[in-house]
Amino acid sequence: MSADQGTHGYLADKEKYLVRLKRIEGQARGVHRMVDEEQYCIDILTQISALTSALQGVAVGLLDEHLKHCVSDAVRSGGDVAEAKLEEAAQAIARLVRS
Amino acid sequence: MSADQGTHGYLADKEKYLVRLKRIEGQARGVHRMVDEEQYCIDILTQISALTSALQGVAVGLLDEHLKHCVSDAVRSGGDVAEAKLEEAAQAIARLVRS
Amino acid sequence: MSADQGTHGYLADKEKYLVRLKRIEGQARGVHRMVDEEQYCIDILTQISALTSALQGVAVGLLDEHLKHCVSDAVRSGGDVAEAKLEEAAQAIARLVRS
Amino acid sequence: MSADQGTHGYLADKEKYLVRLKRIEGQARGVHRMVDEEQYCIDILTQISALTSALQGVAVGLLDEHLKHCVSDAVRSGGDVAEAKLEEAAQAIARLVRS
Repeated sequence: MSADQGTHGYLADKEKYLVRLKRIEGQARGVHRMVDEEQYCIDILTQISALTSALQGVAVGLLDEHLKHCVSDAVRSGGDVAEAKLEEAAQAIARLVRS
Repeated sequence: MSADQGTHGYLADKEKYLVRLKRIEGQARGVHRMVDEEQYCIDILTQISALTSALQGVAVGLLDEHLKHCVSDAVRSGGDVAEAKLEEAAQAIARLVRS
Repeated sequence: MSADQGTHGYLADKEKYLVRLKRIEGQARGVHRMVDEEQYCIDILTQISALTSALQGVAVGLLDEHLKHCVSDAVRSGGDVAEAKLEEAAQAIARLVRS
Repeated sequence: MSADQGTHGYLADKEKYLVRLKRIEGQARGVHRMVDEEQYCIDILTQISALTSALQGVAVGLLDEHLKHCVSDAVRSGGDVAEAKLEEAAQAIARLVRS
């Protein structure tokens, strides 16, 4: 466990996120197997859509925790660090919205 | 190998898709490991955005092949099958655009 | 009315699309007014999300009609035109999925 | 001008947003006109993709300002208001990512 875990908002729910990501890993493996077994294209696409939604759910959850902990801590400290954290979060949001 | 492989447009590039999906599986495993190692939230989000983009790339490629082969074959045959395949493709596109 | 309207799949539902797009235009004007009246940021974002969803709905509908008519006609004719139409549709789908 | 303008982060750039939204309104009107003039489906879809991207750009910008001002102010004040603002922002982000 890292020394600065207090700054990572998602750690309170770490086990929950690990379970979700393990399932996502399984979904990715499943898509690979479907192609390997030459399954029907539309069924594969349905699985990819489900996988994408699951990933977006994790991303939105992580970002939520990040704003509530890491960014909020920085805002309360103020100064350049606060500004940098807010800018960094804004860029992460932009990447998620556009991906 | 399935008997009806001729209907799956992506099979000409099957190996290419398997390589891409193996890489995606590795990316998913990497995101799990980052959370397990309690890495920085924004770095995890960056990896999730990259993974989502890679998945969308595979989905768009599969759909492209599906239109060029399976749907085109059905359209040339005509009738209810053509209509059903077109409707099915439209729904898959809608799921991808909204996910 | 254009001479080649028969190739545009959406024309059977032209009036329906015009109504939806007129409403979308009104939504865009509404977002502009909300900013001009200095309304609450989150309320503006909610309207933008609704507007984006409405646009995606129109795009998916137009693409559906395009596949069912223009692309299908080309596929039945065969040759280079079919290939070009399929490639063009694939690129439009990629743009929609990524936007 | 509203009395509580200080809480709206986007107001420093209000004119810039109004210009962007006026352009978006024009793009929406352009899509309507393209359908009315029965233009080619793929060209209409290209315009819709551009319009969606422009809207996402405005949304990401507004959200950025909202985090930097309204949410940051609430976080500095602390208490239930801070929590409510963070939750509200998280939900707006989720809507944007999924739309």
